[in-house]
Amino acid sequence: MTGHWSDLLKEIKSQRGNAGKPMYLAISDYIKDAIELGNIPDNTKLPTNRELSQILAIDRSTAARAYAELARDGYIASHVGRGTYTRSPMKLAPSADFEATSELIWAEKFSRASQTVYDMFRLEHSKYGWQKGVISFAGGIPTAETYPNQDFEDMLSSILEQGRGHEMFEYSPGEGQPGLRREVKKYLESQDINVTDDELLIVSGSQQGLDLVSGVLIDPQDVVAMEDPSYLWAICCFKSRQARCVPVSLDENGLRLDVLEQVLKRQRVKFIYTIPNYQNPTGITMSVERRLNLMQLANQHQVPILEDNFAGELRYEGERLPSLRALPGGENLVIHMGTFSKALCPALRLGWLVAPAKAMSRIVIAKRASNLSTNSISQVLLAEFLGRGLYDKHLSIVRELYKKRRDTIIGALQKELGYLAGTQKERTKVSWSKPDGGMFLWIKLPDGCHSRDLLTYAERAGVTYAPGDMCFLTPDNPEYLRLCFIQLDEETIKRGVRRLARAIKSYLEDISVSQENRSFALGAGGQTFI
Amino acid sequence: MTGHWSDLLKEIKSQRGNAGKPMYLAISDYIKDAIELGNIPDNTKLPTNRELSQILAIDRSTAARAYAELARDGYIASHVGRGTYTRSPMKLAPSADFEATSELIWAEKFSRASQTVYDMFRLEHSKYGWQKGVISFAGGIPTAETYPNQDFEDMLSSILEQGRGHEMFEYSPGEGQPGLRREVKKYLESQDINVTDDELLIVSGSQQGLDLVSGVLIDPQDVVAMEDPSYLWAICCFKSRQARCVPVSLDENGLRLDVLEQVLKRQRVKFIYTIPNYQNPTGITMSVERRLNLMQLANQHQVPILEDNFAGELRYEGERLPSLRALPGGENLVIHMGTFSKALCPALRLGWLVAPAKAMSRIVIAKRASNLSTNSISQVLLAEFLGRGLYDKHLSIVRELYKKRRDTIIGALQKELGYLAGTQKERTKVSWSKPDGGMFLWIKLPDGCHSRDLLTYAERAGVTYAPGDMCFLTPDNPEYLRLCFIQLDEETIKRGVRRLARAIKSYLEDISVSQENRSFALGAGGQTFI
Repeated sequence: MTGHWSDLLKEIKSQRGNAGKPMYLAISDYIKDAIELGNIPDNTKLPTNRELSQILAIDRSTAARAYAELARDGYIASHVGRGTYTRSPMKLAPSADFEATSELIWAEKFSRASQTVYDMFRLEHSKYGWQKGVISFAGGIPTAETYPNQDFEDMLSSILEQGRGHEMFEYSPGEGQPGLRREVKKYLESQDINVTDDELLIVSGSQQGLDLVSGVLIDPQDVVAMEDPSYLWAICCFKSRQARCVPVSLDENGLRLDVLEQVLKRQRVKFIYTIPNYQNPTGITMSVERRLNLMQLANQHQVPILEDNFAGELRYEGERLPSLRALPGGENLVIHMGTFSKALCPALRLGWLVAPAKAMSRIVIAKRASNLSTNSISQVLLAEFLGRGLYDKHLSIVRELYKKRRDTIIGALQKELGYLAGTQKERTKVSWSKPDGGMFLWIKLPDGCHSRDLLTYAERAGVTYAPGDMCFLTPDNPEYLRLCFIQLDEETIKRGVRRLARAIKSYLEDISVSQENRSFALGAGGQTFI
Repeated sequence: MTGHWSDLLKEIKSQRGNAGKPMYLAISDYIKDAIELGNIPDNTKLPTNRELSQILAIDRSTAARAYAELARDGYIASHVGRGTYTRSPMKLAPSADFEATSELIWAEKFSRASQTVYDMFRLEHSKYGWQKGVISFAGGIPTAETYPNQDFEDMLSSILEQGRGHEMFEYSPGEGQPGLRREVKKYLESQDINVTDDELLIVSGSQQGLDLVSGVLIDPQDVVAMEDPSYLWAICCFKSRQARCVPVSLDENGLRLDVLEQVLKRQRVKFIYTIPNYQNPTGITMSVERRLNLMQLANQHQVPILEDNFAGELRYEGERLPSLRALPGGENLVIHMGTFSKALCPALRLGWLVAPAKAMSRIVIAKRASNLSTNSISQVLLAEFLGRGLYDKHLSIVRELYKKRRDTIIGALQKELGYLAGTQKERTKVSWSKPDGGMFLWIKLPDGCHSRDLLTYAERAGVTYAPGDMCFLTPDNPEYLRLCFIQLDEETIKRGVRRLARAIKSYLEDISVSQENRSFALGAGGQTFI
């Protein structure tokens, strides 16, 4: 086809005369036309730069530039070792150009934030699963049996019958569907939390609340002081904004203020994150005096508090303790978070955020940028549910149910492992928390044990749980495991604990040999609050 | 009461003997007990440090330390100029300690990200509003009249009748409700977008898609190359992660590749963000050839593309153009975003994200950290809607409706402002885009005009719109305004355009004097793609 090419010469020259465009463009344009008109068929091998420059009596750089144009616009493709071929961009086919694998392209594209979240996720999902037949104390989602489906269905029907269906399909403002906002305000008042309209935001689950507050408050290297251990996905939210999470240990009354005070004195803390009720993962409840003193301390240092009340309604004995938001100073200092996912129904994905107006003015806008607004249907439905006073009814049902399950798991642990709890032998001592509410129970194995090693035994025995180490900011806390007791019926709980006890027994036997030395090495790392 | 205090001395001394604790603690503990037992009533004035040190024959620092303890734990409060008073922490009342205003506490707490979002929001909401009686071409949310409420209601009823209500209240996995995922996959296949299960994510509206992708890909100072002007809240998402947004101007065929290529050569670009169909705000559609060449260029530089197809289904003439994801290389390079909010119903807050598996593995986890999962009710409802083939029916209805509205607004503009469009006088020339789909029309005023100045005239005339300057990354683009034409009926559109024309006329008259000089000054800044 070299002949063909040399014939083009004067045509291109004349073209150039007309258009007065640079030679390389004249060439590339001509070849483009020729390809599109079919004068040069697809997959025609083109001359090399050198050949083209000889044929057209132009210098090599001009030929190269012409080909570069054609390549950029997709008219030709170069295949290593095979030369340059034409193709019509209109029926461009996957080719060597496109064989780069996603792996290669994406491997180095991910942000540090993404890496943080990814590591957390791997930590949570490594080494324990949901295989069939395995009794799982892991996770923390109430089971469907407790959802008030019949109430929901009745309400949906009646909303439709009343011709109010459209309410469910109208766009809700970012701050939340007005009807639901009214009901949540009433609900909060019953908790002595009085909010004005510019202090309340409806969120798509409290995880979004955490995400929004993190985005609004945290700059890289900011310090967040928080309970250690704490809620994995809160740690994740903060770290993904590159916060420095500073651990504050707990005692049986909650967050230790002597430790916190040292932190507040030594560092500039952006905010304090705490779960005062039935803390995740320890199940510890902060005493009233501790709450009051925490407010004092935060106020002295003018440091805001993010209060996560994820399970506040799941109280199995005693009086409801005051929310930090309801205590003196709370209106200025506290961002209060709550959700309907744990006590009611996670599928609704609805929670609330209460914050001082000044802070809320920013959080509302962050919500706008995060997902504009929350779905209306679920908001209308929940508003109806609250408006009919069905929530209290529902709470009394689940409280009774979950209280039985808590009593059952504690009873079962006492029955199966009591002899290890009572023992004086540190190397075999197993202890657990006795939460007065919530969904989590916290077990401590003897120093030197590792809850991830135990998982192997547990899964062999047909039971699983959440290893506690992932909830810690500090290293060397391998002895803990978290059990969620609300998602299994009493019989299953008993069976699960029997299996767990069996696993712990054989695990302790296996390591008893190496135990002595290790316990000395690791003893210091063990927490002492249970 | 000094007498009373001196009496304490030996008691405290003896106490100390027993407990062997430091004097300042002995004192503070004793006073705590006395307060809690009511031996010292609330609001009792305490002696000053000096008095206390004299009474107890201790040095001042010990007295001060004792009081510090009491203050930290909330048993006493100091009121400037009035002295120190007791109070029971249990009935702690708001006091001088708590009078710090939120303003003070929060003023310096907000992150840079928050500031970015806040500024964007102010930009969007400054200077134009939604007052009663004002005809608004601003915003971009389809009006409720188009929502298929009756279909939704029928489906809800039949889902309930079929005893499938529970599906709506079960927790959905983070990647989306299985039924909806199946339907969205089918829908995407009809667009030549074939996805595997690990390439698809259901999101809570495409704004969440933007937020997730930003979080997963952007580190501070990363470069995002994007159309200029572009979607305000996309710019916001990127900037809030501290991305450097590099502008790429548009021509009538979309993103200018010659400009983009220079950017790709000069800088390390993390990804390219583009809206190929009916771009926001210009309404421009990217030509097929441009799409092919964009893929070529992105592939040469191995730079991913975020394709925002927010209004792809709102096509009023011509064939559907191929999604970048459906073009060669798309499976490796393109993250494709779409939503049901514009063509169907924003209240559902549902959209989708398609990404190469490697990227999706991170995005799914980011979704987990953002809001766990999306509400089930709306997902089940939409799955049903798609499954019944109602979406196509709905699309043909809204396409016809919106096409009429587009024709109406263009006709009205021609009728009212045609004489200014035709003019040769640059100083009075007004031009506008003729979008072949979507919801936005883009108007260019004569150089030297400012769309925010015009707003004053517009609102006086009873009409409003979105000033274009907020959509630009580059400064000095004050001559543009964006009109949303899908949210008003034809009569209102005509009336609105009449008002707008009146406003433009009087605005041009008022500035015509100073026009000449300014047009020379600002002319260069004006874009030329319409």
